[in-house]
Amino acid sequence: MAVGKSEKRVDAYDKVTGKAQYTDDLCDSGAYVARVLHAAVAHGKVLSIDTSEAEKVEGVVKILTCFDLKEKHYYATPGHPWVADTKFRDIEDRLILTDMVRFYGDDIGAVVAENALAAARALDLIKVRYEEYPFVMDVQEAMKDGAPQLHSRYPGNVLEHTEIRDGDYATAAAEPGLVKVEGWYETQTMQHCHIENFICFAEMREQRIRLVTSTQVPHVVRRVVAQALGLDCGQIRVIKPYVGGGFGNKQDILYEPLCAWLCLQCGGHAVRLDVPREETFYCNRVRHAFRMHLVSWMRPDGSFAARKLELWSDQGAYASHGHAVAGAAIPAFRQLYPCADMEIDAWTVFTNKTVAGAMRGYGIPQITWAMECHMDDIAAALGMEPLEVRRRSLMPVGYWDPVSRKALNDDSFKQCLDRAMEITDYVQKRREYRNQTGNLRRGIGAAVFWFDTGVAPVVLETSSCRMTLNQDGSLQLQLGETEIGQGADTVFCQMAADTVGVPFDRVHILSFQDTDVSPFGTGAYASRQTHAAGFSIRRTGLQLKALILDRAEKLIRIPASNLDVRNGKIVRISDGFEMMDLGALAKDVLYNRTDSDHLSAESTSLINTSPYTLGCTIAEVEVDIALCKIKVLNLVNCHDAGVLINPALAEAQVHGGMSMGLGYGLSEKLLFDPKTGRPLNNNLLDYKLLTCADHPELKAEFVQNPEPFSAFGEKGLGETPVCAVAPAIRSAVLCATGVGLNEIPMDPQNLYDSFVKAGLIPRREGSACTI
Amino acid sequence: MAVGKSEKRVDAYDKVTGKAQYTDDLCDSGAYVARVLHAAVAHGKVLSIDTSEAEKVEGVVKILTCFDLKEKHYYATPGHPWVADTKFRDIEDRLILTDMVRFYGDDIGAVVAENALAAARALDLIKVRYEEYPFVMDVQEAMKDGAPQLHSRYPGNVLEHTEIRDGDYATAAAEPGLVKVEGWYETQTMQHCHIENFICFAEMREQRIRLVTSTQVPHVVRRVVAQALGLDCGQIRVIKPYVGGGFGNKQDILYEPLCAWLCLQCGGHAVRLDVPREETFYCNRVRHAFRMHLVSWMRPDGSFAARKLELWSDQGAYASHGHAVAGAAIPAFRQLYPCADMEIDAWTVFTNKTVAGAMRGYGIPQITWAMECHMDDIAAALGMEPLEVRRRSLMPVGYWDPVSRKALNDDSFKQCLDRAMEITDYVQKRREYRNQTGNLRRGIGAAVFWFDTGVAPVVLETSSCRMTLNQDGSLQLQLGETEIGQGADTVFCQMAADTVGVPFDRVHILSFQDTDVSPFGTGAYASRQTHAAGFSIRRTGLQLKALILDRAEKLIRIPASNLDVRNGKIVRISDGFEMMDLGALAKDVLYNRTDSDHLSAESTSLINTSPYTLGCTIAEVEVDIALCKIKVLNLVNCHDAGVLINPALAEAQVHGGMSMGLGYGLSEKLLFDPKTGRPLNNNLLDYKLLTCADHPELKAEFVQNPEPFSAFGEKGLGETPVCAVAPAIRSAVLCATGVGLNEIPMDPQNLYDSFVKAGLIPRREGSACTI
Repeated sequence: MAVGKSEKRVDAYDKVTGKAQYTDDLCDSGAYVARVLHAAVAHGKVLSIDTSEAEKVEGVVKILTCFDLKEKHYYATPGHPWVADTKFRDIEDRLILTDMVRFYGDDIGAVVAENALAAARALDLIKVRYEEYPFVMDVQEAMKDGAPQLHSRYPGNVLEHTEIRDGDYATAAAEPGLVKVEGWYETQTMQHCHIENFICFAEMREQRIRLVTSTQVPHVVRRVVAQALGLDCGQIRVIKPYVGGGFGNKQDILYEPLCAWLCLQCGGHAVRLDVPREETFYCNRVRHAFRMHLVSWMRPDGSFAARKLELWSDQGAYASHGHAVAGAAIPAFRQLYPCADMEIDAWTVFTNKTVAGAMRGYGIPQITWAMECHMDDIAAALGMEPLEVRRRSLMPVGYWDPVSRKALNDDSFKQCLDRAMEITDYVQKRREYRNQTGNLRRGIGAAVFWFDTGVAPVVLETSSCRMTLNQDGSLQLQLGETEIGQGADTVFCQMAADTVGVPFDRVHILSFQDTDVSPFGTGAYASRQTHAAGFSIRRTGLQLKALILDRAEKLIRIPASNLDVRNGKIVRISDGFEMMDLGALAKDVLYNRTDSDHLSAESTSLINTSPYTLGCTIAEVEVDIALCKIKVLNLVNCHDAGVLINPALAEAQVHGGMSMGLGYGLSEKLLFDPKTGRPLNNNLLDYKLLTCADHPELKAEFVQNPEPFSAFGEKGLGETPVCAVAPAIRSAVLCATGVGLNEIPMDPQNLYDSFVKAGLIPRREGSACTI
Repeated sequence: MAVGKSEKRVDAYDKVTGKAQYTDDLCDSGAYVARVLHAAVAHGKVLSIDTSEAEKVEGVVKILTCFDLKEKHYYATPGHPWVADTKFRDIEDRLILTDMVRFYGDDIGAVVAENALAAARALDLIKVRYEEYPFVMDVQEAMKDGAPQLHSRYPGNVLEHTEIRDGDYATAAAEPGLVKVEGWYETQTMQHCHIENFICFAEMREQRIRLVTSTQVPHVVRRVVAQALGLDCGQIRVIKPYVGGGFGNKQDILYEPLCAWLCLQCGGHAVRLDVPREETFYCNRVRHAFRMHLVSWMRPDGSFAARKLELWSDQGAYASHGHAVAGAAIPAFRQLYPCADMEIDAWTVFTNKTVAGAMRGYGIPQITWAMECHMDDIAAALGMEPLEVRRRSLMPVGYWDPVSRKALNDDSFKQCLDRAMEITDYVQKRREYRNQTGNLRRGIGAAVFWFDTGVAPVVLETSSCRMTLNQDGSLQLQLGETEIGQGADTVFCQMAADTVGVPFDRVHILSFQDTDVSPFGTGAYASRQTHAAGFSIRRTGLQLKALILDRAEKLIRIPASNLDVRNGKIVRISDGFEMMDLGALAKDVLYNRTDSDHLSAESTSLINTSPYTLGCTIAEVEVDIALCKIKVLNLVNCHDAGVLINPALAEAQVHGGMSMGLGYGLSEKLLFDPKTGRPLNNNLLDYKLLTCADHPELKAEFVQNPEPFSAFGEKGLGETPVCAVAPAIRSAVLCATGVGLNEIPMDPQNLYDSFVKAGLIPRREGSACTI
């Protein structure tokens, strides 16, 4: 069996040898180069664009501005399946180019040139006149009366407000003898920083638009580009080659509509739109910054009497994934520490900033930061061990969620915590690190995470699969679900191999999605793919196997019920005897003179389950108080991801998630100039992405409780490990120094301010950063 | 309905604008360039190859010779489906490189270089030593005792001999009062001269060999390359882009195995093998030259008493399509003029010449030349009108062929002859052109042709198809059958549109075959594709339609039995009311929250029928006796091709076929030096391919008898129009001059010799060509 083994990645050879083809590798060198003209004000109206000087640059093909967009087809950018009910549909607030500028960097024009140099020169020579408006960059400011308004449809800039009232919060909070614990917690704006910047190219072929793009969601791209251009989706063909990371940024439709439109404006000539790194920071998507206010009413025994959450999600200038991200945080808050009496208010608010979209974790890293910091604050207030407070109130086995209609089957939290504590010698070290003095102090801390696999049943989960049998008994496997670097293709091949009964290396997957031929799949997001594709691979594989055994019965006159396919052989079940090679059967069937058939199967699965995927992170740190620096000594993630289809790839996924969690907790933050709204550190020099050297050894531990509602016992894996790293570090810093930071990143400036406030170090005049 | 309309070619826009991508367009500029080292003797053994000087050329990557081929996997080159029974399998006599040279140009090595110049220079510097053997270039010489032997498995150089004895020829021929008519007829070696020379490139991707090639038969290429390399076919991925003509040459596996092997020898680096025009003439395939001896025993009323055929087919040095070509000529001989008493002997014979393979007509142009010349000779001998002799004996309606198990349903010959005679004013002109004198003389003549569509039931006919429904109600169509310039894709789209019930322009076909994703199909040959694919398109389309109507029933609560899909709408049959748009249904089905499905259908059809496709050609000529030149004034082809799926494309196919027939009849002939075996005119200057200016206006007429055994009433179309052009011209020349030529091409040399022999002109000394 291939499932459960660390099979080598199917794309390893090509990626290591540089043969793997990404979007740029497929683009003809004769393609025109497009560059986007971004607005240089944070809020305003474009009055005029003077392209006369720019047009003179040699090599410029065409300069198009918002005023050239004759037909206005508004479209939504999130990579979600389409929804029939307009009430639940993503918000259609984008145009290919706009004359209403809502953030610094909004798309107001584009240059198409024969080469990158000409495009860049022309861009510099374009003169834009604006009518400038006041702008707002803070979520709570934006909600105030008189604040600048971004979208007329959303007065007060509130995209959506969720109000949940479970039980009776006020009465519950009035229970005598309660301790009130209150905190404000804040997360920053962050960018995905995938290795491969967004890039796409479009050209007319066969009187349709062929678009090759670095996306997580090719089938969604097709639909949205069609909508943005006012075409039928059959007029668009989208191809997704290898992708160098996405992390949710490429779950948004980024510049595909603009690129396709430019191609049409240039008579169908190939147009390539490559977004430079500097622009990805502010013109792609970012992670929503959350401001969270938590109030907990605790009984002295550590149990919750009542809980309250106020949450402001910073949407930036356009809706994109919008309230769905805050919406994903809400069940995490409700379910991680269940309590009968709860009050939740969540607002998603427009500001004149870069648009926030999907990013690994989708609201859960933010809410986990607040909840887990808050748990430590509660523990401190009650004088209890932080993990004891958690264990007392964590979602119990048997917990039933009426929305997703599922129960928690496994005691994952306990198992993960026990395992992680044992590995890290947590109890002993907590004891050891008490009452330290001196400049270098060590601490250990923990945080738990809660996650739902996929989006069912709130959003459609569907996955299609096609398999064909080659004449040598090997399989071709096609899915709509996308390999974007995470190893999905390898895992799909393992599942297909076991289902049909062939060796792993006899499954050949089509890694590139092509909407003309690929079965439908919604793509890579929500840690859904292994789970969702598992269903359609299993169903399709069983269909193919049934066809194979039916033909085997005809050929060797043994009932199909006594036959199986194992390791690429037709085997008699009763005695395990190998009757014939699958390749021989495939050949006989295909070239059969009376009953030739090209054996293939194709099916769609609707997925109604979204298994919980739970776990914890433990961090050990050394804090240099004088230098305001945290050194992470040890980081352990323990995770119940169900059956690991491929342990090595699971470990790699967790390592990647932990790494992003480290950057989130310690260093990354996209800054904006409060005077102009301009992004300040939109480059990899000033935006402090961690490097290899900044990482401790990462340890990925697993508890494998097979998930009964999954095709192969698996649960989601991709996003979870990012969620609890920052609060675990915060917990360790609190252990080391007694100082609990409420805002990330915990960078030196943040630590300095906190340590000064705590009296650990004196304030030095002139050292404060004004931003 | 789209079928029957001259819909615009689906590839018209791309081909006219230069956007269509052929193999060379897809090859990365960094690919290595391979050139083949051809033997410079006609028969012998390679003793040594000195590459030392060649290796020094800058840019040379690798030089490989026959001595580097460690594993010898013999393979067969014809583009046929694989046959389980080894007795009926194509002959496996080729190696990737050989040290046994059997013709001038045999493949003994290859140079791989960074660029074409380096490859060419290196090729020039390689020194080869041979042990030379005597060689033979004439089929009857090759069969003689003591003739040089090409293959030890085939003593006497006879690849195969078919001996048919129907009735009792000798007794029948002894009937009193018979007139014996006897003739020797000969056809030449000819090359396909497709616009796009053979080209392919191979590279390792995902640890498999990806081969892009200009082929008619991609699925066959995969199988044969695997065999030649000793790999499983799943290790090979073959992609066929647009193809610039094949005419049967690309129904052979040409240099794909060599190219793939070179790629492996270069560590998987991309290797491009482009065959220069000069080499295509002698290192690809040619049409079999036939020598035919016909004897007819005629009753005075013009009926046959007995018929005899002796046929020698010149195979050249390797088996390729071998005896199948002579084998295809035999039923034409037997069935066109049925006779109870017949004697047939057909030999396919190896000679030390370029390998003969498939070429448009596959033996039928050759046998038609002999039969139809012979019919005119019979008419002359009996003093009858040539067409009257034919009409008397042509295969009658109701004729039953026990081999293909089919009857002739339609009186196609009569209908076609009547129509063509009327158009050309044949009877009047025959009268008019009697007894001419002077140098310029006109004549009119006719010939008929007989053809089977496809290869069933002698060889497997199978075709698979996949259709998927897009969210806008448009269709994706995939087939294994290949567009190679003939317009197949357009016709497939028309058939799919009508079957499912969508407008023609809503069907999007995948023109490129990719063995990883394309349904299985054997490819373009034997005029099979419209017929074969028609079955699988119909079956698959009906399956898809049933799925659509099933969902429509669920959605609109009207029984599927009262619903139809028409013009892209779900229509209530009872009153024709349009219930909903197919796109709306597709969207509802795909995004359905309780029953999502990506509607698709895939199926394979086994085809057991091979409809007759019959007709005639009439030519009117003016002969300049002194200059020995024929000017074709008028050429009409009248053809029962059943229902024309696309009349404009049918006409274009017929025009192309007539044009090739003109070259065959008048000018084309590949010559070999009798002293060395070297090809003499292997270039487009010396090989006299006709140009536009050499063509009269071509007229394509059709009789449309719907074929009951076809999915859309169609019959084959691609090859037939080439078959009867040469004998029609010969008939017209005979009418004009009284001279009947028995050999093609009827070029000036041939005419000179014939006219001298007939006493029309005096012999001029020194003018005879010795070749």
